[in-house]
Amino acid sequence: MGGDRAPDEIIAGAVRARDELGVEIVLVGQPEVIRATPGGDTFAIIEASEVIAMDADAGKSVRRMKDSSLVRAAEAVRDGKASAMISAGNTGATMASALLRMGRIKGVARPAIATPIPVPGQDLPTILLDAGANAECTPEYLVQFAQMGAVFARARFGVEAPKVGLLSIGEEETKGNPLVKETHKLLATGEWIGGTGAVFVGNVEGRDIMSDVADVVVTDGFTGNVALKTLEGGMKALVGSLFAAFESTPEAKDAAATLMPALLPLYAQLDPDNTGGAMLLGVDGVCIISHGSSSATAVVNAVRVAHEMVVGAVVEHLRAAITTA
Amino acid sequence: MGGDRAPDEIIAGAVRARDELGVEIVLVGQPEVIRATPGGDTFAIIEASEVIAMDADAGKSVRRMKDSSLVRAAEAVRDGKASAMISAGNTGATMASALLRMGRIKGVARPAIATPIPVPGQDLPTILLDAGANAECTPEYLVQFAQMGAVFARARFGVEAPKVGLLSIGEEETKGNPLVKETHKLLATGEWIGGTGAVFVGNVEGRDIMSDVADVVVTDGFTGNVALKTLEGGMKALVGSLFAAFESTPEAKDAAATLMPALLPLYAQLDPDNTGGAMLLGVDGVCIISHGSSSATAVVNAVRVAHEMVVGAVVEHLRAAITTA
Repeated sequence: MGGDRAPDEIIAGAVRARDELGVEIVLVGQPEVIRATPGGDTFAIIEASEVIAMDADAGKSVRRMKDSSLVRAAEAVRDGKASAMISAGNTGATMASALLRMGRIKGVARPAIATPIPVPGQDLPTILLDAGANAECTPEYLVQFAQMGAVFARARFGVEAPKVGLLSIGEEETKGNPLVKETHKLLATGEWIGGTGAVFVGNVEGRDIMSDVADVVVTDGFTGNVALKTLEGGMKALVGSLFAAFESTPEAKDAAATLMPALLPLYAQLDPDNTGGAMLLGVDGVCIISHGSSSATAVVNAVRVAHEMVVGAVVEHLRAAITTA
Repeated sequence: MGGDRAPDEIIAGAVRARDELGVEIVLVGQPEVIRATPGGDTFAIIEASEVIAMDADAGKSVRRMKDSSLVRAAEAVRDGKASAMISAGNTGATMASALLRMGRIKGVARPAIATPIPVPGQDLPTILLDAGANAECTPEYLVQFAQMGAVFARARFGVEAPKVGLLSIGEEETKGNPLVKETHKLLATGEWIGGTGAVFVGNVEGRDIMSDVADVVVTDGFTGNVALKTLEGGMKALVGSLFAAFESTPEAKDAAATLMPALLPLYAQLDPDNTGGAMLLGVDGVCIISHGSSSATAVVNAVRVAHEMVVGAVVEHLRAAITTA
């Protein structure tokens, strides 16, 4: 029910995901809306009469709208009726539903949003967390984000010894705000590493996010969300100006057409529909947060990631990493 | 003496600035080094025997190296021997020298670095401040940054009614960390606007920096520095991958050559050498901070900006804005 392009693109994506990946999918929402959408009547449905709007207050909505699709989806995971939930709807309400219905993994202070940032020219993305779940953090939260990010890097991308960096404004450990300085001290002890295989590479800077300096970049949810959206806005502005230049003259248009095959891999890499979405780490179940403008392709990729996370037992690995820390 | 390409490019830039702009320039540093560099013997020199290294601790260096070029340059402005200082050297030491020798404008709690961010397809950049001078801020500092940014937008870019946004993680005033929420309340009163002509447009997000949503984006120096460097890193990664694609085949190479005239304006707009550098706002004199890798062209543009700031009496306007706040 959620997302700017629901229900059409969401259900079209579900159809493709089932056909292409062989993953069993259950749709959560208003049966009459789902059944009236092409492909909708071919799925099992968990009924939910309410829809939390994209711009609704997250906490209030989740508390009051107990029969909303987001709350019912999180309950389905809690009750073992689904192995994972995926939403392109209200991000805050998705987080709140997952947190309140699935609960936290034992020992986790705060769940965090882990967002893979594509790195042009590299196979592996940089995982940024927290990308926006917690505007206020303590050093202890950030240490857990480091643990969870490292587990995610291994489970999702096969990185055996994930390089973990702490986002700051200079490489020296004396640089940064009090949160970063205190977190640096804790991370430098290495006591948090446990079985994650992580390697602490020290402070990293904003310019290192879109590079291979670190596999995991740890920060508070305020800074992480600003960095993520700054990058998205910058990419969009630059790509928009490039396309305008490509269209500026008939000669440019012809030349751009010739260049397209060389540019398409880069364009595909940066397309948010291809990242598979972000994952809420620390809740007791798999919860994939897809961006609001998700197309069918985005849904297919989100299902692929959700499936990998379930098969890879990422929640079990997180549980082990947190309790042994 | 400072900057990765000093003294050659710095002095070459000084020669060009003098010839192209007709601005009188005095070089500060070791006379024997300056005179041994092409063009160096054609300038008046303020002698300084010491050089603060690019990676030196800013505070310590400025306190101990009283005969360094940075300290002497700031003294020259204080003593009226120069109207402005420009440095491509150690940013922290440049700030510390300016702060300790020129002092603050009366009423200014903390000087801030104002960095113009080019917006592709737009004539006007977005001014981001604080871009890194103060890792820790109070709401009161941020209100002054709003005042100073608005004055700068008018003096430097002729924006009569600068749109000022507060960097947060959602448009709603309830979004953000405690610093942002408290600052939002203060900015929303409008009491700070005085004669700046500013218009408070509310919270803005990272994606709005490279857009025309706001002329001035206010944030603390930690978040601002992360945003600035994230954007720089993202642009560099994307442009690098574009050039790699342009070189990937003979056909692509030919097509890219045809496209170049259409792409050059964008490339020029994003070239940091063309922004004219950042300005340290709030000290009692004009202090331009050029990036470390500044070429002669960057120096020419920094001199142009310094000259405009002096002629436009930006320090006097700042003084008026702060004391009437």
